[in-house]
Amino acid sequence: MSKYAIGVDFGTESGRAVLVRVEDGKEIASEVYSYSNGVIDDKLPESGVKLGHEWALQDPDDYIRTLSHTIPAVIKQSGVDPADVIGIAIDFTACTMLPVDKSGKPLCTLPKFRKNPHAWVKLWKHHAAQPEADKLNETARKRGEDFLERYGGKISSEWFFPKAWQILDEAPEVYNAAARLMEAADWVILQLTGNERRNSCTAGYKAIWEKATGYPSKDFFKALDPRLENIVAEKLSTDIYPLGVKAGGLTPEMAKLTGLTEGTAVAVANVDAHVAVPATTVTGTGKMVMIMGTSICHMVCGTEKKIVPGMCGVVEDGILPGLFGFEAGQSAVGDIFAWFTKNCVPESYETEAREKGISVHELLEQKASAQLPGQHGLLALDWWNGNRSVLVDTDLSGVILGMTLQTRPEEIYRAIIEATAFGTRKIIDTFVECGVAVDEIYCCGGLPERNRMLMQIYSDVTGRQMRISASAQTPALGSAMHGAVAAGKAAGGYDTITEAAERMAHLRDEMYSPILENQEVYQKIFTEYDTLHDYFGRGDNDVMKRLKRIKAEQAEKGKKGKK
Amino acid sequence: MSKYAIGVDFGTESGRAVLVRVEDGKEIASEVYSYSNGVIDDKLPESGVKLGHEWALQDPDDYIRTLSHTIPAVIKQSGVDPADVIGIAIDFTACTMLPVDKSGKPLCTLPKFRKNPHAWVKLWKHHAAQPEADKLNETARKRGEDFLERYGGKISSEWFFPKAWQILDEAPEVYNAAARLMEAADWVILQLTGNERRNSCTAGYKAIWEKATGYPSKDFFKALDPRLENIVAEKLSTDIYPLGVKAGGLTPEMAKLTGLTEGTAVAVANVDAHVAVPATTVTGTGKMVMIMGTSICHMVCGTEKKIVPGMCGVVEDGILPGLFGFEAGQSAVGDIFAWFTKNCVPESYETEAREKGISVHELLEQKASAQLPGQHGLLALDWWNGNRSVLVDTDLSGVILGMTLQTRPEEIYRAIIEATAFGTRKIIDTFVECGVAVDEIYCCGGLPERNRMLMQIYSDVTGRQMRISASAQTPALGSAMHGAVAAGKAAGGYDTITEAAERMAHLRDEMYSPILENQEVYQKIFTEYDTLHDYFGRGDNDVMKRLKRIKAEQAEKGKKGKK
Repeated sequence: MSKYAIGVDFGTESGRAVLVRVEDGKEIASEVYSYSNGVIDDKLPESGVKLGHEWALQDPDDYIRTLSHTIPAVIKQSGVDPADVIGIAIDFTACTMLPVDKSGKPLCTLPKFRKNPHAWVKLWKHHAAQPEADKLNETARKRGEDFLERYGGKISSEWFFPKAWQILDEAPEVYNAAARLMEAADWVILQLTGNERRNSCTAGYKAIWEKATGYPSKDFFKALDPRLENIVAEKLSTDIYPLGVKAGGLTPEMAKLTGLTEGTAVAVANVDAHVAVPATTVTGTGKMVMIMGTSICHMVCGTEKKIVPGMCGVVEDGILPGLFGFEAGQSAVGDIFAWFTKNCVPESYETEAREKGISVHELLEQKASAQLPGQHGLLALDWWNGNRSVLVDTDLSGVILGMTLQTRPEEIYRAIIEATAFGTRKIIDTFVECGVAVDEIYCCGGLPERNRMLMQIYSDVTGRQMRISASAQTPALGSAMHGAVAAGKAAGGYDTITEAAERMAHLRDEMYSPILENQEVYQKIFTEYDTLHDYFGRGDNDVMKRLKRIKAEQAEKGKKGKK
Repeated sequence: MSKYAIGVDFGTESGRAVLVRVEDGKEIASEVYSYSNGVIDDKLPESGVKLGHEWALQDPDDYIRTLSHTIPAVIKQSGVDPADVIGIAIDFTACTMLPVDKSGKPLCTLPKFRKNPHAWVKLWKHHAAQPEADKLNETARKRGEDFLERYGGKISSEWFFPKAWQILDEAPEVYNAAARLMEAADWVILQLTGNERRNSCTAGYKAIWEKATGYPSKDFFKALDPRLENIVAEKLSTDIYPLGVKAGGLTPEMAKLTGLTEGTAVAVANVDAHVAVPATTVTGTGKMVMIMGTSICHMVCGTEKKIVPGMCGVVEDGILPGLFGFEAGQSAVGDIFAWFTKNCVPESYETEAREKGISVHELLEQKASAQLPGQHGLLALDWWNGNRSVLVDTDLSGVILGMTLQTRPEEIYRAIIEATAFGTRKIIDTFVECGVAVDEIYCCGGLPERNRMLMQIYSDVTGRQMRISASAQTPALGSAMHGAVAAGKAAGGYDTITEAAERMAHLRDEMYSPILENQEVYQKIFTEYDTLHDYFGRGDNDVMKRLKRIKAEQAEKGKKGKK
């Protein structure tokens, strides 16, 4: 009799459950729930309380509704006996965090705090804690805190402590009322199992925790703000569990809500990006996994801790148990292509695409594919949304160079794609220079599925073979795999994620290999990219920052002028 | 009884005659003739002989047809008695040159040479003499020829001697059969008057002639090619006449052809750009005239010869008699805006423009005008067609810097306009640094008429008042003014171009003055432009040249691959 596992992927706008056959990873059924309150970035639900600039919240009830809607749906679709579902696991956006009371109830669900924005879930892309992040980084630098180098020299405003500190700064009553500050991922596990079992991935990548030394010192937190001195003891937990570990069994209430059997194994939570690694078949070192979509997340594991400039983080047990997981990223990739097609493609191309019955992206790819590398004479820097790795600088901006009066839209499109490939190459080179091997590349996400030219360019630019995950819902599959591991072999699952990956994860047959003559041309152009990368990115010419300053000043003046 | 003068402006695609009242410059009638053979860049008329890459020819018969079509037409339209037309003058594109026989007949009109491309008129934009230009420049540099610095350090492949040398190199039979090699401008004057009276403007700006020292030495020409040693004596003439001088009276044949009176005063020829200077009211020093269209030509006069890096030329009597005329230029301006609207404006904007019943340019201007300077955070280098002044480098290319995911098309459009203004500012600054005063700016051409935002940006960026010619056909008006001067006061005209300009040339009422707070912001952004100008343009980073080399190599490989 086949056994099954369920993975639930909590995204930014919706949650998705996938029911997977344990023996071979076959995805039997899947269901999506669109959060009824979506991303809350204008005003609170019900009360209509207005939110500030750069705020982004979520409603924790949407997570429960995801469970109650999608799990019964996949059971029903598949016709599987709930008793044959041996494990369940989830993955989440991160850092997405919330304050809860002693019983684990989100403060925003209490009438007292319902109208207080700080009582709600702060979504990963809540950017209003920048002042706290700036102060945190300054203090850490001054004190020479070792942890900074594990995170490319900078703690992001998206991460746990800036967000926690913002609550304390702006709503101390919420901070004080919070028995716990939790990653939403860990909070859902608490709901499912009744156990607070925080996972090593969010702790490591988002909350400055490491296995060997734990969280930053009390002294450090005190230096930030005396009220934060005991934040770890008072609001967090030092019990951190590696991925794939069982967090507990499904509670009776949750069994009822989901239609699953009470006591079904539940794994500790994971992060959506990191859980995709084993789902792309990767369980060892030297194999980089790239999640390629609006942005790119690069993950690779090694056996030793290495300090790599500009990476997002290195965390022991952070991606695969027993290994050091390294993460880096490009803050805009598909987003730049979308910007281009929205803002820079002429009407005649739209008409041509309609006549051919293809998308504008496809038309541009067709036209751009007709050229050899370098034939457009263009070079771009892929910094439309700043540079995450290796420069860690949100104030950088995009460049296109080499235009003539003959330059065509598809040529600029190709140059932008190449620029993002050069950005990835720069990240890979930096890893390799620092002793982290990157031998092959495994891809998942939306871009690899439909962009053959892009994939070939990435292979040519990086000089590496590129393989693609067979699953279109890699994070949910990865979660299901972790559910099977939490259940264990005895229950019909697996004892390790490596075993689970061997059976449940698959690659597409197609693969991209570097073409020697393209590689040679791209090597020359990458050298040019690298020179401009350092010229504009490392302080030789800070024109981008100065232009952004003028832009901000003039926008301010423009606003005043209109009043 | 009013007197009249006729100016004929020979352009690239057509010729235009304007009949002007001498007392006040009122333009009474005008008529255009589109050359029946247009620009000949693919194959010769009649024979169909194929032309090489970068060739551009014209048919001299088109010039005669222009005279026979347009002059009778303006006489007829105006109802003016031909006896009251006291003078006629022409202006021409340059260097546009042709080989003629002893009787002044173009060699291409002789059956023997009809099928030989080198016997036809080489149009200004014939670029196939680049190898000759390269050799000429190299030889001049090696020999330390003084004349180089009068032309920004480089003789263009568009100019007289590279074109003449190409004829010798590739068709010595044509070269040997040519009794004269002439500017088409001077050839038309020869046709009108029977006199070979070459003008100082084309001689100075296009044929390395200067009043004080004449042409380059025989030694120099011999060093180029022994057969060229006596080119000046054999094929040119050392009789050079300043502008406004009477070349002669209309011949009986030409009187018959045009319907004018035999003996009507004909001025020596002029160049289309330079003749616009007095037509824009400028007859003295410190006032820069800018012809703003697909490109910009900058002209200013001074009392002393100065060497200005990267200018196109300094010629005594070259623009106004008695003054040193300085010329500089930007090789693409309106062309870049046209490139942008053709290649980079999304369908939604085209739709919006149609709905509003305005052009896309107007829509972009409307949207871009809503912002303050610097509010887009962008910076561009205006080198889509290389940089004519002050870098004199056709291998440079365009740059746009500062894009974010929020950047809109109108912002890039504005940044490109600003880049061309910064290019003009750089030229002005260079003149001023070298002791050539530029106090005010006078504009004519297509751009100033319809681009208010552009004009204000130029005024803000240059910190100078911008005035605009009242005439929409400034070169033809300028020619008519020279016709009136050739006739002289006694005949009802004027004795000097200054007197003619005082009466016949007019400005629009509208004027653009710099706005202090805009100027301050643009000063900051210009500093950034200047830094990148030197970084990419003066050898710090020759990435543009290297990309063009890769582009050429790959285009070649692409062609072979397709065979």
